[in-house]
Amino acid sequence: MVITSLDNNKIKDLIKLSMKKYRDLTNTFIVETPHLVEEAYKSGIVKEIYLIEGETVDYDIPVTYVSNEVMKKITTMDNPSTMIALCEKKNSNEIIGNKILLLDNIQDPGNLGTIIRSSVAFNVDTIVLSLETVDLYNPKVLRSTQGMFCHVNIITMNVIDAINEIKKRGIKVYGTNVNSGNDVRDIDNTSSYALVMGNEGNGVKQEILDMCDSNLYIKMNKKAESLNVGVACSILLYELER
Amino acid sequence: MVITSLDNNKIKDLIKLSMKKYRDLTNTFIVETPHLVEEAYKSGIVKEIYLIEGETVDYDIPVTYVSNEVMKKITTMDNPSTMIALCEKKNSNEIIGNKILLLDNIQDPGNLGTIIRSSVAFNVDTIVLSLETVDLYNPKVLRSTQGMFCHVNIITMNVIDAINEIKKRGIKVYGTNVNSGNDVRDIDNTSSYALVMGNEGNGVKQEILDMCDSNLYIKMNKKAESLNVGVACSILLYELER
Repeated sequence: MVITSLDNNKIKDLIKLSMKKYRDLTNTFIVETPHLVEEAYKSGIVKEIYLIEGETVDYDIPVTYVSNEVMKKITTMDNPSTMIALCEKKNSNEIIGNKILLLDNIQDPGNLGTIIRSSVAFNVDTIVLSLETVDLYNPKVLRSTQGMFCHVNIITMNVIDAINEIKKRGIKVYGTNVNSGNDVRDIDNTSSYALVMGNEGNGVKQEILDMCDSNLYIKMNKKAESLNVGVACSILLYELER
Repeated sequence: MVITSLDNNKIKDLIKLSMKKYRDLTNTFIVETPHLVEEAYKSGIVKEIYLIEGETVDYDIPVTYVSNEVMKKITTMDNPSTMIALCEKKNSNEIIGNKILLLDNIQDPGNLGTIIRSSVAFNVDTIVLSLETVDLYNPKVLRSTQGMFCHVNIITMNVIDAINEIKKRGIKVYGTNVNSGNDVRDIDNTSSYALVMGNEGNGVKQEILDMCDSNLYIKMNKKAESLNVGVACSILLYELER
């Protein structure tokens, strides 16, 4: 059977998942493109797959076929994928490991996705998203992670509470500040760290900087006032992983 | 006088500049937001400023006032700026300096903008855009540069011709390849280099890799298949500038 009607209740529910409110309410989200579906499948979070009629897929997961028209309504992409998966959120509340990234109010979905991708590349154990940070399950964020959101522990919590917890474990907390602090190249002993990155326009809140053991900066030409936050974060993680 | 009509010829011409075709035809482009206008002004490329009625500006440049409605039609942003500047392209054809970045078919405007911003931070002298790369004067590219497009020599030309020219000058040309090559940390003598970055999905074309002296890679966890191209490029430039 192929669903061709937009009035179908399953389809209506899927379309609602483009909104955070419904993702939170149902504890589910969608991933698009075969690559992301594969990564989600390997992580065991896929509940159901929606396929364009005529396509095939090899996963042992219930498949629902839909018409092109229906897929166009479910997708959040300009060029719809042939495949969408309904997934269950894997909620974690625990700060695990010794390499922790804290994101204080990152707003751009592409930036968050890029940062998650780089975090996997440079062995971050836990990413803490502040309550104001863009939703992890925003489809643009997920696409920008290139599926890497499945490979790192990501939790949403108050950053101040997180820093207090991290400090109790004796892990050094580094803020980031364009104007002052230590060149990240001079940091020794990076087997454990917590790094705080701030909002695109405003950086890390002063209240949070005040809690940090020290600030890190990246040496650069003065003409460039700053770097894109995804780039800055990635360079710092790269350097802390040397 | 305040222009309130969308039928005004100046306004019609400005609106057309959202299309590359008209930017090429007129050799002009627009920049939005006061910060970008300021950077463009300091570079001496602003021909005319368009301001929302009631706003003021201190530059010695002709100002045209427009209504909110008209500004909403000129802008390419969801939240229109109060100020837009019509600018003249500063066309350069010359590969200058010893630190050269070549971009082979970068498609995402945000990625190109980010790369330009990082290039200024890490002292690149010339950026060569391949003919297929997204247009530098695309408003999203310009915004992502945070005005930094004014601070580096950027030219558009065939990448193969550019590499041939660079090699004649005795500058080493590095390709980038996720799977093979030299760890960028092991590269000595980085007082001159040419770095080639490739397309988001496909990387650098084999034909171009074959021309390179060697390939560079960034050491990372194998789980992450690759990095965002803006991030990868920025880390390489950062590392080559040490």
